[in-house]
Amino acid sequence: MRKIPSNALTVDLNCDFGEGYSLYRFGQEDELLAVVTSVNIACGFHAGDPHTMRETAAKAAAAGAAIGAHPGLPDRLGFGRRAMAVTPQEVYDFTLYQLGALQAIVKAEGGRLRHVKPHGALYHMAGADEAIAEAVVKASLAIDAQLMMYGQSGSLLLDAASRLGMAAVSEVFADRAYEADGSLAPRSKPGATLTDPEQAAKQAVSLAADGFAYTAGGGRAAVQADTICLHGDGPHAAVFARHIKLALEAEGILLAPPQFLQSKGE
Amino acid sequence: MRKIPSNALTVDLNCDFGEGYSLYRFGQEDELLAVVTSVNIACGFHAGDPHTMRETAAKAAAAGAAIGAHPGLPDRLGFGRRAMAVTPQEVYDFTLYQLGALQAIVKAEGGRLRHVKPHGALYHMAGADEAIAEAVVKASLAIDAQLMMYGQSGSLLLDAASRLGMAAVSEVFADRAYEADGSLAPRSKPGATLTDPEQAAKQAVSLAADGFAYTAGGGRAAVQADTICLHGDGPHAAVFARHIKLALEAEGILLAPPQFLQSKGE
Amino acid sequence: MRKIPSNALTVDLNCDFGEGYSLYRFGQEDELLAVVTSVNIACGFHAGDPHTMRETAAKAAAAGAAIGAHPGLPDRLGFGRRAMAVTPQEVYDFTLYQLGALQAIVKAEGGRLRHVKPHGALYHMAGADEAIAEAVVKASLAIDAQLMMYGQSGSLLLDAASRLGMAAVSEVFADRAYEADGSLAPRSKPGATLTDPEQAAKQAVSLAADGFAYTAGGGRAAVQADTICLHGDGPHAAVFARHIKLALEAEGILLAPPQFLQSKGE
Amino acid sequence: MRKIPSNALTVDLNCDFGEGYSLYRFGQEDELLAVVTSVNIACGFHAGDPHTMRETAAKAAAAGAAIGAHPGLPDRLGFGRRAMAVTPQEVYDFTLYQLGALQAIVKAEGGRLRHVKPHGALYHMAGADEAIAEAVVKASLAIDAQLMMYGQSGSLLLDAASRLGMAAVSEVFADRAYEADGSLAPRSKPGATLTDPEQAAKQAVSLAADGFAYTAGGGRAAVQADTICLHGDGPHAAVFARHIKLALEAEGILLAPPQFLQSKGE
Repeated sequence: MRKIPSNALTVDLNCDFGEGYSLYRFGQEDELLAVVTSVNIACGFHAGDPHTMRETAAKAAAAGAAIGAHPGLPDRLGFGRRAMAVTPQEVYDFTLYQLGALQAIVKAEGGRLRHVKPHGALYHMAGADEAIAEAVVKASLAIDAQLMMYGQSGSLLLDAASRLGMAAVSEVFADRAYEADGSLAPRSKPGATLTDPEQAAKQAVSLAADGFAYTAGGGRAAVQADTICLHGDGPHAAVFARHIKLALEAEGILLAPPQFLQSKGE
Repeated sequence: MRKIPSNALTVDLNCDFGEGYSLYRFGQEDELLAVVTSVNIACGFHAGDPHTMRETAAKAAAAGAAIGAHPGLPDRLGFGRRAMAVTPQEVYDFTLYQLGALQAIVKAEGGRLRHVKPHGALYHMAGADEAIAEAVVKASLAIDAQLMMYGQSGSLLLDAASRLGMAAVSEVFADRAYEADGSLAPRSKPGATLTDPEQAAKQAVSLAADGFAYTAGGGRAAVQADTICLHGDGPHAAVFARHIKLALEAEGILLAPPQFLQSKGE
Repeated sequence: MRKIPSNALTVDLNCDFGEGYSLYRFGQEDELLAVVTSVNIACGFHAGDPHTMRETAAKAAAAGAAIGAHPGLPDRLGFGRRAMAVTPQEVYDFTLYQLGALQAIVKAEGGRLRHVKPHGALYHMAGADEAIAEAVVKASLAIDAQLMMYGQSGSLLLDAASRLGMAAVSEVFADRAYEADGSLAPRSKPGATLTDPEQAAKQAVSLAADGFAYTAGGGRAAVQADTICLHGDGPHAAVFARHIKLALEAEGILLAPPQFLQSKGE
Repeated sequence: MRKIPSNALTVDLNCDFGEGYSLYRFGQEDELLAVVTSVNIACGFHAGDPHTMRETAAKAAAAGAAIGAHPGLPDRLGFGRRAMAVTPQEVYDFTLYQLGALQAIVKAEGGRLRHVKPHGALYHMAGADEAIAEAVVKASLAIDAQLMMYGQSGSLLLDAASRLGMAAVSEVFADRAYEADGSLAPRSKPGATLTDPEQAAKQAVSLAADGFAYTAGGGRAAVQADTICLHGDGPHAAVFARHIKLALEAEGILLAPPQFLQSKGE
């Protein structure tokens, strides 16, 4: 991975990968791999299987992307998007299992697992429930104390990571409007979703350079932008990705994955 | 783990563990844990789940048993006992995934994964098909080069392990009659299964002390006995286990798990 | 099925059956089959599989028990006991699928599917959410307009059944204390669970003969008792079952499954 | 369904449908639905789920296509394409379960299940193993004695269907070369797969009009063509389908699903 000058402005672009299963493929991975700097690989619960995990890890490693885990709830039929009444202990067990499986596969492909980003319902539950958040963090720390936790800006998941000694990487969305308090505007609100790639690119720049997102009303909301999430499954995913990348680079913002806090693990 | 005098005759007693799932429990684990020296923990494909894996690993670690992985085919409904037309690449992927998941759980519980023993149909396929055997061995080596492979005495799985630089641990059965060539007598043959615990105990002693098993006709078959398999799911599993243990100890044969070839990994 | 004199006091005893899976078995079915008058067979989502369904249907038919379906959420790992954020449409689809599968199996075994009782989290969700309740009822009516719906006394599920033209069978619990309003006392409340079989038998009689349950404080709560649920998975399930049956028969209360409203379907 | 003049030459075009799962979709169903006269809907084992089954059944019914079941082995990860060592009893149970589920869904959508075509490995196993073939037929007859069995021309599955009193519908492939004995040329043979839509269309006509297929060497093989299979998952599936349909219609061959033997069931 190339070195970033220490005084440069950088931001990470991340995307969920390996969300196919069996014969099914999902998303425009090859096009997006030319743009993103980190990928979150599904671990076989909500999507993915041992074969897709290995192939995706190999592809990501070859492209130089930082590799993270994308663990989900055990609900393949619902693609991990349905909330389930799981206990923190269950979440710990599910996360540890999935991370261990992916870590072994990434290592066998010559790479290193660098971060964790929960998927779907688990992402939202860990962002809003302290005990679930701690379960995800503790399972991650049990895997590797240097792993970084990707979570929504301002979420309890990032609080738990920081509190328990894990690097917290604040995730933002270029294609979503925010509320004035820094939370995401609900999808039901007009203007909540940015459908124009230029507008998303503009928000990406303001997030990375100035630390604020736009509200649906055109105002500003302060948010910490360590990594920008690219949705990989829409029909225009690659178009959005390229617009965002170009806009950031035009402003001199370098794309790079977050770095480990200590160098000893590299 | 207590040290074994280097000149003592030792043998390992192993049993499949953690083969419950969801609310279901399987086998007489607590009674058997007082007898066995190594356990093979199901990894979530043919049986087991993240919860049973953690509980079983903790229980085994507390009892001082050596912990191994018991990966199976992805056929929970068939308990991994049905042969499937899987490729060596699929077997490699399945094994790596399962071993990685269990390794992480065992490590989180303060233990270390020491060996691998394939389950059911995978055990038989890996014992008889060179490419499948190599896939299991390579996935295991990718996890930890010091892992030991448990396989049926005389099987292609042990050949592959030795050839690829992995410690091969030869498994025998105290409760099964053998053919003169060292293979197991087929279950359809009269006398193939030993139903008397005393008879099984006698065979265990002859296996461990003298290196031979009995044939259905009463003859002898030379077999390498590094570990004796205890079946944990029959109604009399614990009775058999205690008879075998007592008979071995009466002959001065110490029960102990196989040791890592090099000390550096301990 | 024997005819019940039309003026006799009768009550149904029902129990969940076929909740094993793969090699796993669950509950004391053979002992309970001598007592219960209707069984609810798991349909392969939370528990059960095509094999257990056929075996259980054959066993129940041979014993003369009324056969119903026990559909659950698609969460085998959680045994269908975890609430999930499913939509009414999903619940309709899941229920229709499971009922169709069991109906075919029961018919192939020479029996007839007579009722539906949702399992675990689905039972509670359908009891408290009108849209979920209607989804379960509509799927059941699509299978057979004469099917009867078993649901908790006073629940929205029974309201939906009645409203949509389906026979509603009010279920009560002999081993649980009630609140004064006819709802179940929460398990956290002292005395909420009756652990003495004689006490449960006494409550069964008062439920069937007089239409009231006891409250934790010793008071009375009016409840409609068409069917009494026997829990089949505890260690003392068969003991409770026999006490309840004997106490009911001693009071001249005949055990019989609910009858179809119209005779045309028989 | 429109009536076919009794003296007209007709042939059925069938295609596997509903082979998506969860969020995944598979094949070019909407385009193919304008061409095919019968569809085989996946039933939730190798592919499909309660939601895709309902949607697909509704879509097929609206388009006037004959609806059949496409049951598979319980191997979603392998898309039902891997042979498994299952017993005839297991095959019976799996088939009955899947057919019952789909039958209920089709009925709820106002349609009627008309035929059965096993999927993948089950198709091949039932075509070559008499006991497996009989298990599939018996499960189908238990569902509805008028169901028709689609199977490979010359297979044991069709023999079993005829022997047990079930209508046998002989399936052929427009895009595969045959051996002189009427079996399919193995895919490893040069010319085994027809990649030119015109060539496939020509073979479709010779199959339907003259009862023979071409061999890889250009010779002729006599085969019974009641239904032609269209593969729905290739990139050019719709192109092939339209070529075949046009060529057949140009020769005055009407496309129509096979009719029930007796009229009483309509």
